[in-house]
Amino acid sequence: MGAGVDLNSDLGEGFGVWRLGDDDALLQVVTSANVACGFHAGDPSIMRRVCVRAAAAGVALGAQVSYPDLVGFGRRFLDIEPAALRDAVLYQLGALDSFARAAGTSVRYVKPHGALYHATVHDPLQAAAVVDAAAEYSAHLAVLGLPGSLLLRRAEEVGLRPVGEAFADRGYQANGELVPRGMANDVVADADTVARRVVQLALDRTVVAVDGSIVRVEAESICVHGDSPGAVELARSARRALEAAGVELSPFAPR
Amino acid sequence: MGAGVDLNSDLGEGFGVWRLGDDDALLQVVTSANVACGFHAGDPSIMRRVCVRAAAAGVALGAQVSYPDLVGFGRRFLDIEPAALRDAVLYQLGALDSFARAAGTSVRYVKPHGALYHATVHDPLQAAAVVDAAAEYSAHLAVLGLPGSLLLRRAEEVGLRPVGEAFADRGYQANGELVPRGMANDVVADADTVARRVVQLALDRTVVAVDGSIVRVEAESICVHGDSPGAVELARSARRALEAAGVELSPFAPR
Amino acid sequence: MGAGVDLNSDLGEGFGVWRLGDDDALLQVVTSANVACGFHAGDPSIMRRVCVRAAAAGVALGAQVSYPDLVGFGRRFLDIEPAALRDAVLYQLGALDSFARAAGTSVRYVKPHGALYHATVHDPLQAAAVVDAAAEYSAHLAVLGLPGSLLLRRAEEVGLRPVGEAFADRGYQANGELVPRGMANDVVADADTVARRVVQLALDRTVVAVDGSIVRVEAESICVHGDSPGAVELARSARRALEAAGVELSPFAPR
Amino acid sequence: MGAGVDLNSDLGEGFGVWRLGDDDALLQVVTSANVACGFHAGDPSIMRRVCVRAAAAGVALGAQVSYPDLVGFGRRFLDIEPAALRDAVLYQLGALDSFARAAGTSVRYVKPHGALYHATVHDPLQAAAVVDAAAEYSAHLAVLGLPGSLLLRRAEEVGLRPVGEAFADRGYQANGELVPRGMANDVVADADTVARRVVQLALDRTVVAVDGSIVRVEAESICVHGDSPGAVELARSARRALEAAGVELSPFAPR
Repeated sequence: MGAGVDLNSDLGEGFGVWRLGDDDALLQVVTSANVACGFHAGDPSIMRRVCVRAAAAGVALGAQVSYPDLVGFGRRFLDIEPAALRDAVLYQLGALDSFARAAGTSVRYVKPHGALYHATVHDPLQAAAVVDAAAEYSAHLAVLGLPGSLLLRRAEEVGLRPVGEAFADRGYQANGELVPRGMANDVVADADTVARRVVQLALDRTVVAVDGSIVRVEAESICVHGDSPGAVELARSARRALEAAGVELSPFAPR
Repeated sequence: MGAGVDLNSDLGEGFGVWRLGDDDALLQVVTSANVACGFHAGDPSIMRRVCVRAAAAGVALGAQVSYPDLVGFGRRFLDIEPAALRDAVLYQLGALDSFARAAGTSVRYVKPHGALYHATVHDPLQAAAVVDAAAEYSAHLAVLGLPGSLLLRRAEEVGLRPVGEAFADRGYQANGELVPRGMANDVVADADTVARRVVQLALDRTVVAVDGSIVRVEAESICVHGDSPGAVELARSARRALEAAGVELSPFAPR
Repeated sequence: MGAGVDLNSDLGEGFGVWRLGDDDALLQVVTSANVACGFHAGDPSIMRRVCVRAAAAGVALGAQVSYPDLVGFGRRFLDIEPAALRDAVLYQLGALDSFARAAGTSVRYVKPHGALYHATVHDPLQAAAVVDAAAEYSAHLAVLGLPGSLLLRRAEEVGLRPVGEAFADRGYQANGELVPRGMANDVVADADTVARRVVQLALDRTVVAVDGSIVRVEAESICVHGDSPGAVELARSARRALEAAGVELSPFAPR
Repeated sequence: MGAGVDLNSDLGEGFGVWRLGDDDALLQVVTSANVACGFHAGDPSIMRRVCVRAAAAGVALGAQVSYPDLVGFGRRFLDIEPAALRDAVLYQLGALDSFARAAGTSVRYVKPHGALYHATVHDPLQAAAVVDAAAEYSAHLAVLGLPGSLLLRRAEEVGLRPVGEAFADRGYQANGELVPRGMANDVVADADTVARRVVQLALDRTVVAVDGSIVRVEAESICVHGDSPGAVELARSARRALEAAGVELSPFAPR
């Protein structure tokens, strides 16, 4: 029996006339699609389109939930009350699931976006708000996030399946944390290196840190990006490398 | 076997810090609540609150869907493409239903709000967009609207249950249409008159028009308003009159 | 020569169909109106109405600028980049001033709202963003805020006039800071006490703290609230007490 | 003395992370920039950037005002009350002018966007609302629009300068109206043809209609588009052709 992994990416990040990233190209690469739900990006028509195409491609759908911040693309921390955040997450979940169901499938997981992703690593109240909304919506939802985050811990506590993710194109520190944006080696841009890393992540659950040490990363899914032509190409080569290494690519949360 | 009727009203029409109408008072009066879904009014926390309280009071929940127009409260016609409107309705439906389900019930019907209500009386494309989104969401949804509207005709065509409504506090013309706003006798403000009318509507399915003629109104539900203290009192006296006349008050679309 | 003081209050805090507070009543009480500019409250038509009425009443107009957060009423800290905040403040200032000018006057000062008010007490970057936008708009604008705040310090540094304000209905600690919301004596609800306090603030620039000590408050303006009938009555009695004590009420930043 | 003409284009049509068109490229081509003001596109930071760069390039700034419809990009007719539209236009004008003034210049003209552009051709109330807001803001503003539109007629009536525009890349009917979108020859895509047309428009104020007849077009400005790489190239070649023909390119409303 061979090793397997999931590839996830953010999709449906346009709004109105605007587009960000190449949804159609990425749907040929990933096995799970984190779909924007209208709070940081995504409008009803874009959401429907992604759901229809993902369903046709056998890509699992996740709700990428966010603070309400369209002009900031959800990238700015908002000191929102936990109850209001929980309500906002439940709203987004239900909205997206109506398109998933219309497309013959359903939302399988939740992943926080942007500043909410970062907040739920360390903030117990915001982490609980996101997870509790998911649990309220369905006991069958998985939660996708950073290994070791309070988000995944809370998921485990309430009985939702926690799924850790690694980043194909980000540098890691020796302690397993990402190299912060703006520092040296924060991003891995070389396609061959990215390809080597994803294979190692899938087969060994490890990555080479910036100091050369080998770090364990408990990730069932690897996040790839698609917001530039180069990023799509990087994602494609990552997938080819995984396939060449005999790694089975499949959604962590299939229908 | 006695006669019966449903009383419906618009609820959850606040946003953020703002409130409109007295939700709690109306939930003691009506049997069906048309809940704003965030496009003309309503935010996630208000939506949850209404759903929880309606469920506790045995009031049926409907999605009051709207054009995206918060600043205009959905009262202004928007020449939106039918496909975009259908997507917008599906989005609102799913969002509200997540709160209904969290409260142990589910959305039972759809009613368009404001300018969309008026547009779907005569505009076949917008009427179809609203109904088709509802049908796509669930074959068990009812559609609440004006008797004789294209909205209800479309509902019938696609196999959804059409439910006509009458207005407790509006004047009727001899042809069965409402007296347009701003004209003489457009509104009925006297509590006794309103009480008499709702009883006649419930028992005989008729109303006395402004010219004194008797007009047939095929309404399973009567709409009452609650956006002023006087309106709430009018709604209460309508309910008391129906109860005194032995009319059974119950949701047209129970769980 | 007698003492004088300004009374300020938040106005124009409705949006679309919604209203908050009684603008017309407050315009008979205050000498300066902090007008919402559309980011936490206020839409163009409400902004025009407040400007027209304030101009007619001789009330000075200030821009109450906010984070972009309508659903949260600007009450939640947003970790916005200083450059984006500066742009957002300049946008709001220009928008409001167009209504002020159409009404024959002009915006005289800037006051941050809600969470931005609190952030600019201690956060040097957000304080500078607000003040620098104001300075960019006009060297003649004043800045209204908490005595001792970084906001007022920055105003002084860049050559704008800093104006400190006191709160008629809030408890003070011995160190001159407000009693935090939710703690004992955070709010002063008794009309006579409020009346005594505003007179003392106007005549002596002092207030009695919760421990009985006398605290200096360098305030040229006193903030009153109007978001409830009781609040309006409190504001009215504060004004009457000041007039009875011979305190001249006039805008700190007249045309 | 040689002939002259203005070239205008829509700029600043991004929002948040999203971009539409190549602002920097177009600022090297046009002499007037129609800048989105936040209602259909444009956020404060994008507005500032365009104003700064346009001022540096000597490009005149106009406010491209719109219905409030971000998700629809202002392309859908909204049946807004004239008073509310007037207020919305004044709001947008003031907001943009604050960035123009910070950049050392000022807004010189108003041009309606999208569905509002089309509505103000024939709708006297919406045309008056836009023009009256402009007149209220400044008697020195010009109004840019379709020759023969009610918009320009109203501008003339209230004493604002009306400026007609032609379209470099659109087909014309024999009666001087544009070939409707979606019909044969609605768009002119060939660079040489576009180049020939703009020169004829600038020198003779005429264009060759789809039936071969010569039509008079009273245009002081020619609108070019920039929302695709091909469009930018078309705009560049139009400018080169005008320069080669000795047509002087300058803003119709210079500082």
